[in-house]
Amino acid sequence: MTPGTAEKRWIVGVDLGGTNIVVGLIPIEGGEVMGLRTHPTDATRGAKFVVDRMVAMVEEAIESVTSGHGTTRDAVAGVGIGSPGPLDRKTGTVINTPNLGWRNFPLRDLMANALHLPCTLDNDANCATYGEWWTGAGRGTQTLVGLTLGTGIGGGIVLNGEIYHGCSDVAGEIGHMTIDSNGRRCKCGNYGCLEQYASGPAIATRAIEGLEAGAPSLLVDMVDGRLDDITAATVYEAVVEGDPYANEVMKDTAKFLGAGIASIINILNPEMVVIAGGVTRAGEHLFEPLRAEVRRRAFRSAQECCRIVSGQLPGTAGVVGAAAVFKKENYGHV
Amino acid sequence: MTPGTAEKRWIVGVDLGGTNIVVGLIPIEGGEVMGLRTHPTDATRGAKFVVDRMVAMVEEAIESVTSGHGTTRDAVAGVGIGSPGPLDRKTGTVINTPNLGWRNFPLRDLMANALHLPCTLDNDANCATYGEWWTGAGRGTQTLVGLTLGTGIGGGIVLNGEIYHGCSDVAGEIGHMTIDSNGRRCKCGNYGCLEQYASGPAIATRAIEGLEAGAPSLLVDMVDGRLDDITAATVYEAVVEGDPYANEVMKDTAKFLGAGIASIINILNPEMVVIAGGVTRAGEHLFEPLRAEVRRRAFRSAQECCRIVSGQLPGTAGVVGAAAVFKKENYGHV
Repeated sequence: MTPGTAEKRWIVGVDLGGTNIVVGLIPIEGGEVMGLRTHPTDATRGAKFVVDRMVAMVEEAIESVTSGHGTTRDAVAGVGIGSPGPLDRKTGTVINTPNLGWRNFPLRDLMANALHLPCTLDNDANCATYGEWWTGAGRGTQTLVGLTLGTGIGGGIVLNGEIYHGCSDVAGEIGHMTIDSNGRRCKCGNYGCLEQYASGPAIATRAIEGLEAGAPSLLVDMVDGRLDDITAATVYEAVVEGDPYANEVMKDTAKFLGAGIASIINILNPEMVVIAGGVTRAGEHLFEPLRAEVRRRAFRSAQECCRIVSGQLPGTAGVVGAAAVFKKENYGHV
Repeated sequence: MTPGTAEKRWIVGVDLGGTNIVVGLIPIEGGEVMGLRTHPTDATRGAKFVVDRMVAMVEEAIESVTSGHGTTRDAVAGVGIGSPGPLDRKTGTVINTPNLGWRNFPLRDLMANALHLPCTLDNDANCATYGEWWTGAGRGTQTLVGLTLGTGIGGGIVLNGEIYHGCSDVAGEIGHMTIDSNGRRCKCGNYGCLEQYASGPAIATRAIEGLEAGAPSLLVDMVDGRLDDITAATVYEAVVEGDPYANEVMKDTAKFLGAGIASIINILNPEMVVIAGGVTRAGEHLFEPLRAEVRRRAFRSAQECCRIVSGQLPGTAGVVGAAAVFKKENYGHV
C-alpha cells in the first residue's frame, strides 16, 4: 500500500487540561484507547512548549500503536483535540483560557501543520460528554447531558447524537447555572453557580467551614489538623471510612447537585445524565441522595425516562470524545 | 376543482387554554392570522363540551375565511392544536391537565374525527414559542428560547428550526428551573422555581407582601385598599403611572428573571430569548433591568450573540405556533 492510501484505522484523541495532557488512539469504529500517555501540561513554560509536547506525545502514541500492528502513520485518519474554552470551532482558535494563559491561539492549525494530519478542536467538557456517549455510559442514547466535577464543573450536551454547541460555542455551561440567585460569587462573575456548591474545591470549602465551626470528624486527623489540606478526595476517603460528618458534606453536595440536575431534566428532558470526576468514587454515598433529591424536584414524566449514572471512562472520556468529534466532522457520523 | 383536490391554502391553529380557546387560520406560507375568534373554555362543563366548542369554532373560522375567498373547506390542510401538558404527542393524548381536569384524553383524534381533517397536538408553551419563531420576534433565527409569563411560566425551546421536545415531551419547562434551591415551594413539588418569582401571581404576591409590611404605593388606592385584588396587571399599571414601589417590584421581577435567563443563556446559548405575556407591557421598565441582570451574570460570549426581546404576537402566538407544528409534521418544514 502506498503512503497516504493506507486504510484508516485509528483517530488520535488529545485532551489538553490545565494540569495534564492525555493522548491516545481510538479505533475508528470505537473501542478501547490504545497507546495512552499522560504528561504534565507545564503551561507556565509557554504555549510553544505545550504545543511541542502535545505534538511529541501524538507522534509517540501513533508510533507505538502502528508499529505494534505492523502498519504505518498512514493508518491514522487525524487528530481530535479537546481544550478548555471558550473556543471558536470554525477557526480552530482558543479564544481565552485563564488556566493556560492563552488568548486567540490558533491551536488546531498549529497542531495540523506540525503533525501533517487533519485536526479538529472542541471544548474539553463537550469532548468528555461525547466520549461517554460514544463508548462509555451513554452508548445507545440519543440525548445525554454530562457533568464533570473537578476544579470546576464542566458540562456538555449531546442531542440526537451530536454535541449541541449553541450559537457561539458556549452551550453546555451547566456548572454556571444559578441554583441560588443570591448565593456565592463565582469566578465567572455570576452568583450562586452550581460550581460554587458541587465542584471539588466547593466541597472542600464547605467541609472546612463546618470543621472550623467545630464539627467533629475524622477529617481533622486525616490532614493532621491542617484543614487547608482538605480536598474533595479527602472528604470522599472519610466518607468511605464511615465518617458521619464527611457523609453529611457528601449529602449536601448531592442535594445541591440534585437541584441543578432536576432543573436540567425539566429543561432538556434527556435520556441520561452522566456524572464524572473524582467525587463519583464516593459511589452510592453520592448517587443515592442525589437521585432522591432529583425525585423530590423534577417532573415525574421527565425523571422517569432519565437515568443518572456515573461515567465509565475515568481519565479517558476526553480523549475518546475528542476523537469522536474528529470522526463526526470528517465522516459525518460517529 | 373537485372536492379534496383544492390547493391547500390555510392551516387552522387552535390554542386551548385553561381560560380561553383561541382559533384562527394561518396561510400555509405564514402570515397574518385570519378568522380569529376567542371563547371561554368553560372547562367545568366537561371535556365533551370543550371539544364540541373547539370543533364549532374551527368550523366557523374555516367558513368565514374560505367563503370570503370564494373557496371551500378543501383549501384547509388541517388543524394544529396546542394544549396544556404533559402530552403524548405520538398518540395525540393529553396525559394530565390539572386546569382542565383531563387525564389520558385522546384530544387529537377526537378533533380529527369530528372535523374530518388531519390534526396535530403539541404543548401550548411550545406552540407559543414556535409561533414567535415562525412569524413573530424570532423570524430568521435558528435557536430560540421562549418564555410566557402568565398564571405560570411556560417555556419552549426551538433548535435548528424545530421544537425541542426531549425524550418524553417534557423539555422546555423553564419556569420550573430552580433559581433558589431553598426557595418558595412550587405547585410542581419543586422548590425555588422561577415561576414562583416571576409569574403573574408571584409578582402580585411579592407586591402584596411589601404593602402589608407598610410600603407606601399607589397600588393601595388602585384597589381601594383590597390588597388581594392586586394582580400583575395592577402592578404594571402602577409602574406606568410612575409609582416607585411598583417599579421596585418590577425591578425585582427583572432580577429573578435575569438570573433564570442567564442560566438558560449559559446552558443553551440561543440567538434569542423571547418573553411574552401581559407583564411585557411594562416595556423597558421590565426589559432594561432584565438585560442589565443578564449582563451581570451570563458568559459574555453567550450574551453577546443573544437578543432578549418582547414577543410580537400577543394573543395569537399559540395559534400561529400550533399551525406551524401542523405544517412541520405534515410538510417536513415550516
